[in-house]
Amino acid sequence: MSLDALRAALPPHVVVTDPAALDVARADKSGHRSVAPPLAIVEAEAVEHVQAAMAWASAHRVPVVPRAAGTGLAGGAIAGGGELVVSVDRMRRLRDVSVVDQSCVVEPGIRNAELNELLAAHGLWWPPDPASRAISTVGGNIATNAGGLLCAKYGVTREWVLALDVVLADGSLVTTGHRTVKGVTGLDLTALMIGSEGTLGIVVGATLKLRPLVEGPVWTVGAFFADEASAAAACTAVTAARIRPAIMELVGREAVSMLAAYTGRAMAGAFVLVQTDDLGADTTSAAVAEILAAHGGAVERTDDLTQSDALVQVRRQLHFALESFGTVLVEDISVPRSRLAEMFRACDEAARRHGVRLVTSAHAGDGNLHPTFVFDGTEPSEEIWACAHEVFTAGIALGGTLTGEHGVGILKRRWLVDELGERQLALQRAVKAAFDPLGILNPGKAL
Amino acid sequence: MSLDALRAALPPHVVVTDPAALDVARADKSGHRSVAPPLAIVEAEAVEHVQAAMAWASAHRVPVVPRAAGTGLAGGAIAGGGELVVSVDRMRRLRDVSVVDQSCVVEPGIRNAELNELLAAHGLWWPPDPASRAISTVGGNIATNAGGLLCAKYGVTREWVLALDVVLADGSLVTTGHRTVKGVTGLDLTALMIGSEGTLGIVVGATLKLRPLVEGPVWTVGAFFADEASAAAACTAVTAARIRPAIMELVGREAVSMLAAYTGRAMAGAFVLVQTDDLGADTTSAAVAEILAAHGGAVERTDDLTQSDALVQVRRQLHFALESFGTVLVEDISVPRSRLAEMFRACDEAARRHGVRLVTSAHAGDGNLHPTFVFDGTEPSEEIWACAHEVFTAGIALGGTLTGEHGVGILKRRWLVDELGERQLALQRAVKAAFDPLGILNPGKAL
Repeated sequence: MSLDALRAALPPHVVVTDPAALDVARADKSGHRSVAPPLAIVEAEAVEHVQAAMAWASAHRVPVVPRAAGTGLAGGAIAGGGELVVSVDRMRRLRDVSVVDQSCVVEPGIRNAELNELLAAHGLWWPPDPASRAISTVGGNIATNAGGLLCAKYGVTREWVLALDVVLADGSLVTTGHRTVKGVTGLDLTALMIGSEGTLGIVVGATLKLRPLVEGPVWTVGAFFADEASAAAACTAVTAARIRPAIMELVGREAVSMLAAYTGRAMAGAFVLVQTDDLGADTTSAAVAEILAAHGGAVERTDDLTQSDALVQVRRQLHFALESFGTVLVEDISVPRSRLAEMFRACDEAARRHGVRLVTSAHAGDGNLHPTFVFDGTEPSEEIWACAHEVFTAGIALGGTLTGEHGVGILKRRWLVDELGERQLALQRAVKAAFDPLGILNPGKAL
Repeated sequence: MSLDALRAALPPHVVVTDPAALDVARADKSGHRSVAPPLAIVEAEAVEHVQAAMAWASAHRVPVVPRAAGTGLAGGAIAGGGELVVSVDRMRRLRDVSVVDQSCVVEPGIRNAELNELLAAHGLWWPPDPASRAISTVGGNIATNAGGLLCAKYGVTREWVLALDVVLADGSLVTTGHRTVKGVTGLDLTALMIGSEGTLGIVVGATLKLRPLVEGPVWTVGAFFADEASAAAACTAVTAARIRPAIMELVGREAVSMLAAYTGRAMAGAFVLVQTDDLGADTTSAAVAEILAAHGGAVERTDDLTQSDALVQVRRQLHFALESFGTVLVEDISVPRSRLAEMFRACDEAARRHGVRLVTSAHAGDGNLHPTFVFDGTEPSEEIWACAHEVFTAGIALGGTLTGEHGVGILKRRWLVDELGERQLALQRAVKAAFDPLGILNPGKAL
């Protein structure tokens, strides 16, 4: 494929064909890698660059992989042979903030944490908080409808986006949604774009809904339990008491023992971490502590920042701890909160049956589990895939979903029909075709 | 069109052709009425009835108008000659409630207020609160993405729906979304359905996200101002102070004088009503009172239920007061909060230019205005439509939208392209066609 027409339509430094850069675009943080490098990367610095790239791709029927920081966990931004990468990584300005409207306008490449630092100066906050927030972009958060630790109380990305500027497959630009809190003109294409993993268009600008920073102190409660069943029951009891913690995490026994080995800190059992914020945080955390103790937890409660940080680090270190033991493959099942204990058990039983190492932790506040395979070598074994299949099937049977927050990408496609059913999958593909009749936007991903 | 095949597919009492019933389906609460009655009404009592009706309609290319309580304000549920009404009004069971999952499963015909009464017994709440909540259905709230007074703090309908059971145009049944708090498998067809005004499918079941009832007392602040500009500036200052009131309403001077005449209560000026809830309600409402006073408001603050109710009734009586003066046509512009004062001014100027009576109030907390024409006779004059056109144009120019919460229905269609643009409108229609290739679902509405 000759790139002459593409080069003619764009400033020279925007079209990147440096082999090292192309190589980077073959992978993301999913552990997967394409067989061959893409044709080129358009490192867009302006909306018009994205439009020119898409117009060229449409004219020449070239598949396009939208990309930014490449931190995805499901392979959605991996580019292969014959594909053009359109990257918005360099478009990372905060264009406007309004305290009165509690909204801001950003370019998609801005990092989540970078944005929130800028917003804090205005007393404002954009709540989506994926664990990757330091390195992941707002555009990527939108593409995957990213979640994080705070979702049960503060919602997912979809709830914090008002409007999007989107370059369509043919290179035209539309603005979906509203800059207002309410707005029901037309179908909600903004929500449709969110979580669509680059299959419908490329987000080149976003109007985000913000909220004031939360007032008051933060209290942290940590508790170790004999097993996951009692820890999960304790978490369920917190929700049943109508308490709304900011964070409620459950780390399984095996994960805790690996954390102990990694950090050198003596600890054992299943770990529950709860943070409460806002004006009633003290009273609420005391109630949480009481519930956890009543379910057999060895409880610690604090508002001291150092002590609190030590408890939170148990959870935050988890991914690094697991990586120190081998290659990791992170799954992302979500089930109704009431089925958490059953899902932990299903993971353990599947792992035992297939003789693989599966370590599970969960955002217990919203029922999102990350069963994580830890293995030697670079490729998951057949046993791991067989076990993953059982885990997915169990999750769906419990009323859950294949992916809570990472996306389908290339990793989950083969189970999609089990969750959606044939009729809905056909409908989803028809909607995709309405946006992308030539099928050039991230083909082979998500759908 | 013979109804024999339809009758054969359904229990006899489900297919209604009683002229009085058909006549009711010619109108909703928009003030509009179709020219001729529909063919028949399928008063569905089960999902299969809706499926059978849609299969028949698809086979015979009969246009279908989905309907429930008929309380819409934009004409979305009005049925005319040659059309089949598929009503889910009789499907009104609460099927399941889970305190731990903070979710429930309902049939679409259940009334919003009826549902919330049942949920209160579990200490739970479904936040969407349109003014019509006593008479409007959850299905209708979903079809219009209904808002209400509490949206700035608690969000709109879209944020409180997890999953939908939808009968498609061909009679097949799909379940969109997830029963879990998080879930990103596939495109977000649930959000796409919400606010689609019956153009994509018929909602026959919904899994709703709930939250615990809000703790603590409610404080109410009422204040009268010299004019709308100072009242709007005061509201803006409340938001700029990063206060999140549960309710913040602004009633314009003319509306207040009509309310005074209607209720016999002496009052004048522009009225601002603020309610604060949750644990810090007392402190927060004191801060609100101070801000309103600093902007020239004559302020009253109370947590006494009777006194509070008297203040709230000023706002709640508004629609009845206006109706006592003539026929009303309610508009539904939404603008960024920071443009509220400008939008009030634009309404006044347009009304003056065209010599029509336009009375404006606003959900100031979220920037949603209801400019309301009050006139003699049954049909709006040419001057009213000309004034409405100017009001819509001004709203869009201020970064706003045609409809914040009522929907497009048949009332706003001619301004749709001004807001969406040609390219997006074409895209929206392509998405509609993916769901409804024969174009039988609520044709002529919304899009």
